Amino acid sequence: MAQHRYVLPESAIPTQWYNVMADLPSPPPPPLDPGTGQPVGPDALTPIFPMALIGQEVSGDRWIPVPDPVREVYAMWRPTPLHRALGLERALGTSCRIFYKYEGVSPAGSHKPNTSVPQAYYNREEGVRRLTTETGAGQWGSSLSFACQIFGMECKVYMVRVSYDSKPYRRVMMETWGGTCVASPSTETAAGRAILEANPDSPGSLGIAISEAVEEAASREDTNYSLGSVLNHVLLHQTVVGQEAKQQLEMAGAFPDVVVGCVGGGSNFAGLAFPFLADKAAGRDIRIVAAEPAACPTLTRGHYGYDFGDTAGMTPLLAMHTLGHGFVPPAIHSGGLRYHGMAPLVSHLVHLGLVEPRAYTQTECFREAVRFAGAEGIIPAPEPSHAIRAVVDEVERAKEEGVERTILFNLCGHGHLDLAAYHAYLTGEMTDLELDQSELDRAAAELADLPALA
Amino acid sequence: MAQHRYVLPESAIPTQWYNVMADLPSPPPPPLDPGTGQPVGPDALTPIFPMALIGQEVSGDRWIPVPDPVREVYAMWRPTPLHRALGLERALGTSCRIFYKYEGVSPAGSHKPNTSVPQAYYNREEGVRRLTTETGAGQWGSSLSFACQIFGMECKVYMVRVSYDSKPYRRVMMETWGGTCVASPSTETAAGRAILEANPDSPGSLGIAISEAVEEAASREDTNYSLGSVLNHVLLHQTVVGQEAKQQLEMAGAFPDVVVGCVGGGSNFAGLAFPFLADKAAGRDIRIVAAEPAACPTLTRGHYGYDFGDTAGMTPLLAMHTLGHGFVPPAIHSGGLRYHGMAPLVSHLVHLGLVEPRAYTQTECFREAVRFAGAEGIIPAPEPSHAIRAVVDEVERAKEEGVERTILFNLCGHGHLDLAAYHAYLTGEMTDLELDQSELDRAAAELADLPALA
Repeated sequence: MAQHRYVLPESAIPTQWYNVMADLPSPPPPPLDPGTGQPVGPDALTPIFPMALIGQEVSGDRWIPVPDPVREVYAMWRPTPLHRALGLERALGTSCRIFYKYEGVSPAGSHKPNTSVPQAYYNREEGVRRLTTETGAGQWGSSLSFACQIFGMECKVYMVRVSYDSKPYRRVMMETWGGTCVASPSTETAAGRAILEANPDSPGSLGIAISEAVEEAASREDTNYSLGSVLNHVLLHQTVVGQEAKQQLEMAGAFPDVVVGCVGGGSNFAGLAFPFLADKAAGRDIRIVAAEPAACPTLTRGHYGYDFGDTAGMTPLLAMHTLGHGFVPPAIHSGGLRYHGMAPLVSHLVHLGLVEPRAYTQTECFREAVRFAGAEGIIPAPEPSHAIRAVVDEVERAKEEGVERTILFNLCGHGHLDLAAYHAYLTGEMTDLELDQSELDRAAAELADLPALA
Repeated sequence: MAQHRYVLPESAIPTQWYNVMADLPSPPPPPLDPGTGQPVGPDALTPIFPMALIGQEVSGDRWIPVPDPVREVYAMWRPTPLHRALGLERALGTSCRIFYKYEGVSPAGSHKPNTSVPQAYYNREEGVRRLTTETGAGQWGSSLSFACQIFGMECKVYMVRVSYDSKPYRRVMMETWGGTCVASPSTETAAGRAILEANPDSPGSLGIAISEAVEEAASREDTNYSLGSVLNHVLLHQTVVGQEAKQQLEMAGAFPDVVVGCVGGGSNFAGLAFPFLADKAAGRDIRIVAAEPAACPTLTRGHYGYDFGDTAGMTPLLAMHTLGHGFVPPAIHSGGLRYHGMAPLVSHLVHLGLVEPRAYTQTECFREAVRFAGAEGIIPAPEPSHAIRAVVDEVERAKEEGVERTILFNLCGHGHLDLAAYHAYLTGEMTDLELDQSELDRAAAELADLPALA
């Protein structure tokens, strides 16, 4: 019988994170201080991050050790399984081989604990007892609540209003792990109050929620801030995913021709793809595809330049693909992909032509998610259904070209808390939200006053 | 670093199910035809079950082969991991070793697909293209929908009204896998209409839903019925759980002093415990504990005798612990444990003194579930929180006796679709429903007209 799943013992959990910075043909442009226009130094970040993470953020070392206490928590669910998508291959009638890494087996149901655990750990090591953060769909907020609970810390989560209202159970999950969750924009911060004054019905956005969480962390001595995606150290922590996948593909006697992930801030994509970029850098023929929502098309329709990571303009300026920090994405079901910007590392790789971006509408993604659920059993989160949609594209392309390819993607989370979205799809109530080009233009115009890329 | 999880390769999926019938000191009393009072023959069951399952229902063979196509579907999620509960041990401050088998990694999130898959398979092999069933919390209905989808069959689920209303997302899950789900009592069957006439606001019960599903299967040529617990063949299929656990405990150099499971109909309990009953029968010193809800205390306060498996009296009479087939359990959050009866095999073992029953209130179970979630990460379904509660009892008992024990329990499902119940607990809105003794007496009185046990 053909093998469905490749599992590894605990001893195979990576002992080091892989830092793609070491294998880039050129470094990405540095973050800038918005006041001076000069690169930010570590000191600018110490009010909200611990030194260990600041060090990882700027490190050029190829390998960075995973502390033993972090590895021990990883062992609660890692290594995650690699699945051969035998059912999906049959359903698609393809002779391509499709593999997926399944991160939905973590306590929070996604890849997010891969970084929430080390972030909580490093903060606690430096005496911090309380963390704030933002969350979109709720995956990140619940993952940080879990990690804080494990290390005996407090966790305060600003959850994007539209998700807070449509996903009450993600909040309950955070509370079950001892976290506190408020809807953003909230009245608890100056940033939140300013947004609410301008628009009392604001659906919120990740950019707004980041402003609130950063403001609270910066203004409280006992509190640091924790980000669930975008930054270099976050992407770094996720590379356990791709490293394990390599070991598992070796068990299967396979190596991918195409690696696929969905992108919002970029972290699950990077976690799977970056370890394979090392192979690409070494000359191996491998294509890497990033799938984003057509309703928040940062990589495919955004501008590559300097922008704030948050809406209120409290963060350093990041060199990234962006729709403008004032852009509020439509209320699609993939809350985790509703971000105006993109990880600087992912943006840089797209700019260099090493990563191919694609955009898909939510209904076409849900159509594939339902087919996947019927064929593979697992009900995907809406976010990775974008990756599945891209995989189907790759299968069709291989058929047209008359070749058989090995395709690897990251199934970064399950959809157990997204069944309202499935209901909307199954009953025909789901629509695709057409983006107004004038809205994109308006958002991009905000960038005119910010420094240009060199 | 201490090992958290014990994983097995696909080749370790059991090739045979273990039939405890072969190791019982005496056989359980046979099912009776309610009309004649005589043991039912296979012919009575052919309108609703395929011959292969009828054969397994009455088999005395110790080992029954798992067909290859079933094993291949099992491989989509099996072998499931065995966890060492290192976090819970720390939280309890115990030197007992606690292990749990985690069945929540299945597509439907519980142990139920272990039997839905072979049941769908055997039905399809005998030409059946459509199955009906009942579901309480929705775990079983979604598991059978999944299995039918895999084998290209139709699935119709009668879902207990109180769960249908409180768990809309379980229904969406069934629909995502192509199943059809209606609230029970429904107007689609004579049994349902009769109940609704007497009580239009009936919250429903598993007994009522079984009546409806059996009625539809018996009256349609193309349709069979499928039961998610109670019957011998269902418990048989679950024994993959205990067999894998044995292999994994061997990897850990451990053997349990105590085996614990929660019981509603009895199947997840039996799946873990029966393979260890073989060791107990062979003289090994091992205690086996069944944990049930105080609001539906079948084993601890019920009567051991003949009763119908359903409310309308359509099934054969089963020798079991029962609260009376007219008993409608209070609307506790553990919908999967709201059954008036108990598997005849489990009842027989309790009667023989080989299994110890215990009853717990839902608030004490949720208290332990929240502690477990904080310590182990996984948020348990409400049903196995009864098992966790019993484990804590065992830990306290070991402490009192000054001994260290190895405790094994079945974490038969996750609570991702039960977060409304966690919300009720965390906000103090959850209450314990005191059972009225007169209600138990009334229910037991129904049994007076039925045959007595020999």
